[in-house]
Amino acid sequence: MKQTPDTSPFVFSPSILLAHWQGHRRLTRKLIAAFPEDQLFKFSIGGMRPAGEMMIELLTMAGPGIKGIATGEWPTYQEAAALFPGPCSRQQLLQWWDEGTEQINSWWPRVAASRWQETDKAFGAYEGPVYWSLQYFIDNEIHHRGQCFVYLRALGIEPPAFWDRS
Amino acid sequence: MKQTPDTSPFVFSPSILLAHWQGHRRLTRKLIAAFPEDQLFKFSIGGMRPAGEMMIELLTMAGPGIKGIATGEWPTYQEAAALFPGPCSRQQLLQWWDEGTEQINSWWPRVAASRWQETDKAFGAYEGPVYWSLQYFIDNEIHHRGQCFVYLRALGIEPPAFWDRS
Repeated sequence: MKQTPDTSPFVFSPSILLAHWQGHRRLTRKLIAAFPEDQLFKFSIGGMRPAGEMMIELLTMAGPGIKGIATGEWPTYQEAAALFPGPCSRQQLLQWWDEGTEQINSWWPRVAASRWQETDKAFGAYEGPVYWSLQYFIDNEIHHRGQCFVYLRALGIEPPAFWDRS
Repeated sequence: MKQTPDTSPFVFSPSILLAHWQGHRRLTRKLIAAFPEDQLFKFSIGGMRPAGEMMIELLTMAGPGIKGIATGEWPTYQEAAALFPGPCSRQQLLQWWDEGTEQINSWWPRVAASRWQETDKAFGAYEGPVYWSLQYFIDNEIHHRGQCFVYLRALGIEPPAFWDRS
């Protein structure tokens, strides 16, 4: 993660942000792999959604989200979610996850530099600058993964290390 | 959140990032305010730390963290954590939280533009670019707040809305 010091005022460049997102996605993938398959769409605390449903939300924002960011063409959220029908197997979730990883890597270089500051409606509904939509996708992933860490602990399983994005 | 489109390649400028962090901190403050005081340092799921201890971790990274980012002078993590002795009252947590908000606003303009790309050791221990340390502080807050959302649901209380940063 070491960078050569420079004097530009940016904090996160697009390339840093891509690495940051994919690092988080590697961690979330480990969580899915560690989750007991028979509890993925079953276990819940306090009436919250099961982990598998939260993961489908993240899948919906990942592949379809980066395509919308790159092209400005958005499906509705419901249309995008329909690409990932649950309940499904853990292997299916992991396969969709890896496809999302490829889609992000493929679309990212096609996001025009000026695009990040444009105002758009993510999934035709959520209006804001494009950088804001992307940050929401990442924050939402951290938020729900943190919740699934609690599920895993409640099931007696140690989650992957939060700081390890390898 | 609307921005005038421009052609600069940055995704998050320092001012956007400050607003982003403080928005997340407003949401976390609502969580603390909603948490039953008698459960703050008591309620736990799966052997995890109580919410109050997690909030003290966030306080430790906020005020002392931004000062270290601005000045390059870091206490050890243990020294910084000792500023926020728990268990304590909910009001005490909220007071420390508001002091952290002021410290962040006060130190932020004093972070040199070139500083974000420098490599430093946060709390004398965690080496990386300064932007990376800051992102870790924010991500760690989202992560633990998400976990405390589960605690709140398990206690039968509806958490504040994740998307509302007002």
